[in-house]
Amino acid sequence: MLNHLVIDAGGTSSRAVLVKPDGSCLGYGTAGGGNPVSRGFEPALEALVEASKAALGGVIQPFGSATLCMAGGSLDLPKQLFNERFTSLGLQGEVLIESDLLATFYSGTYQNNGYALIAGTGAVAARVENAHLAAVSDGTGWMLGDNGSGFWLGREAVRAVAAALDTRGPQTALTELLLADLEIAYDARSTMSGRSGPLQELIAKIYALPPIEMSRFAPLVFQAASLNGGADSVAQGIIDDAGTELARTLRAVMTPTPANLPLVFGGSVLTKGNTVSQAVLAKLPQGLRGPSDGDPALVNDGVAGAAVLGLKRNGVEVDQKIFETVAITLAALRN
Amino acid sequence: MLNHLVIDAGGTSSRAVLVKPDGSCLGYGTAGGGNPVSRGFEPALEALVEASKAALGGVIQPFGSATLCMAGGSLDLPKQLFNERFTSLGLQGEVLIESDLLATFYSGTYQNNGYALIAGTGAVAARVENAHLAAVSDGTGWMLGDNGSGFWLGREAVRAVAAALDTRGPQTALTELLLADLEIAYDARSTMSGRSGPLQELIAKIYALPPIEMSRFAPLVFQAASLNGGADSVAQGIIDDAGTELARTLRAVMTPTPANLPLVFGGSVLTKGNTVSQAVLAKLPQGLRGPSDGDPALVNDGVAGAAVLGLKRNGVEVDQKIFETVAITLAALRN
Repeated sequence: MLNHLVIDAGGTSSRAVLVKPDGSCLGYGTAGGGNPVSRGFEPALEALVEASKAALGGVIQPFGSATLCMAGGSLDLPKQLFNERFTSLGLQGEVLIESDLLATFYSGTYQNNGYALIAGTGAVAARVENAHLAAVSDGTGWMLGDNGSGFWLGREAVRAVAAALDTRGPQTALTELLLADLEIAYDARSTMSGRSGPLQELIAKIYALPPIEMSRFAPLVFQAASLNGGADSVAQGIIDDAGTELARTLRAVMTPTPANLPLVFGGSVLTKGNTVSQAVLAKLPQGLRGPSDGDPALVNDGVAGAAVLGLKRNGVEVDQKIFETVAITLAALRN
Repeated sequence: MLNHLVIDAGGTSSRAVLVKPDGSCLGYGTAGGGNPVSRGFEPALEALVEASKAALGGVIQPFGSATLCMAGGSLDLPKQLFNERFTSLGLQGEVLIESDLLATFYSGTYQNNGYALIAGTGAVAARVENAHLAAVSDGTGWMLGDNGSGFWLGREAVRAVAAALDTRGPQTALTELLLADLEIAYDARSTMSGRSGPLQELIAKIYALPPIEMSRFAPLVFQAASLNGGADSVAQGIIDDAGTELARTLRAVMTPTPANLPLVFGGSVLTKGNTVSQAVLAKLPQGLRGPSDGDPALVNDGVAGAAVLGLKRNGVEVDQKIFETVAITLAALRN
């Protein structure tokens, strides 16, 4: 029984694992971004190979398959080029290209039906049926959607501050936090042709940033909401709205039956602190909130899930024991 | 009594007028963008000079002042360089730099106190007191605000279509209109890894556009809202929300007394069709809806207002007669 190589290929970093059919993770390696769409084919392939070599311990050794999990995973990629490079590392079988959404899902469960909701910089939901993606909702990027994501939270924060500074909107603790973050002195008296001086500076500093950078202000929303016993209705409102939007995204992929399927939450907005995840759960009908025995599984990334998926795709019937072996041995390798 | 030169200096075009103290417009000229911030100082100055020469009929002749109306008008500009160039054209006095918001306001009224609300690509409101800007609200650009603007309407439209295509949001006539506009074939059955094919194409085409280009989709909202007797609740909702946002922007600069001051609406969102302007007026309390004798003054640009302002700044007491003379003689020159 050959080992398998699996890779969680992200936009900024890639993580490879060599895993035995019993779930034991034997090697782990990381490298730069491995997404061919965002990084270009050649640099992405080099990063995937670099992470894989590290996972193989720097030794050419036979392995049965290479499972690459990436965004837009089913798009047509020149698989032959992948096959050639991985064969030179010891690949005996085929390169499989899978969705990173499936990898995230399988970081939280070994079952073949259920839902994943991921809110990091972007936001996306997926329904998994028979170990394949059956439906995807949102994940449409910062202009078209990604509602409730880190970008979305940050943008709502800067818009709320702009509104507060010219009195279109209510006052909020976000103003002081954002101006301090951007090193803008807050002098309410200063005005320039009818406009507040701090707002004029805010405009200059925000438009000097790439749009996607708004996500860096998302933590300010949680900070403002935690002040004064939750009295900041603006920050609290943004968190509630994020929960409403993410619940809508999740419900768009949910089917009423069967009920109580596994529910996996990923991405920092849902896994750090629990304010948004609680807001999402509060908006879901009973029976769609995940297994009756508890809360959604919270996962940090798709590395463990890539290993689970790689084994499944190669005929291994992954059970609770193998799933736990992956989690435990992988955690040991990553520490 | 010398004539005066006035210029409405926009980001993409500039319009100069030579005006007599009695309000008669004697010459008119246009050129490219004349905003030093967006276009750079030298190209902007050249455009202003080109438009001015045309307004002067190509003849060096004495004029009393040059009033430049532009966005961010009070920001520190090297006035000496303006003075030198305009002196070579015949300027006897000074260059005056004024806000384009004041110019728009004075295209609609000759009074010195009142309000302007402008919604074109962006959205901004101003309170005018004693012929000067007393307060400004929004106008903070597409990321921070411009709520209810053409950009905002277009962005809401594309977001609504993305939500409809992956069933997060309700169906809307905007989908067919937007996909046709972007030449995307609408095949509801086509899917790619759990996502609709048309949505995948929409994502690719939207992110190929600069963000500000979303404003080009604003007319689709009005088109969708007019179909089937106004049955499209999504398009109607976007228009209502634009009205709510613009009313909030306007109210932020309004004072309760004195009531019934002149109200000037500018920008294509408020002046073409009347759906948004009606939605704004419906959200304003009685007494803040403009003069009791009628609707807000609708203005297309700030050219007439630049002439009115230029005369006022040079001691002319502009009354109804002079105001009408500006409007009539300017219209004749522009036709």
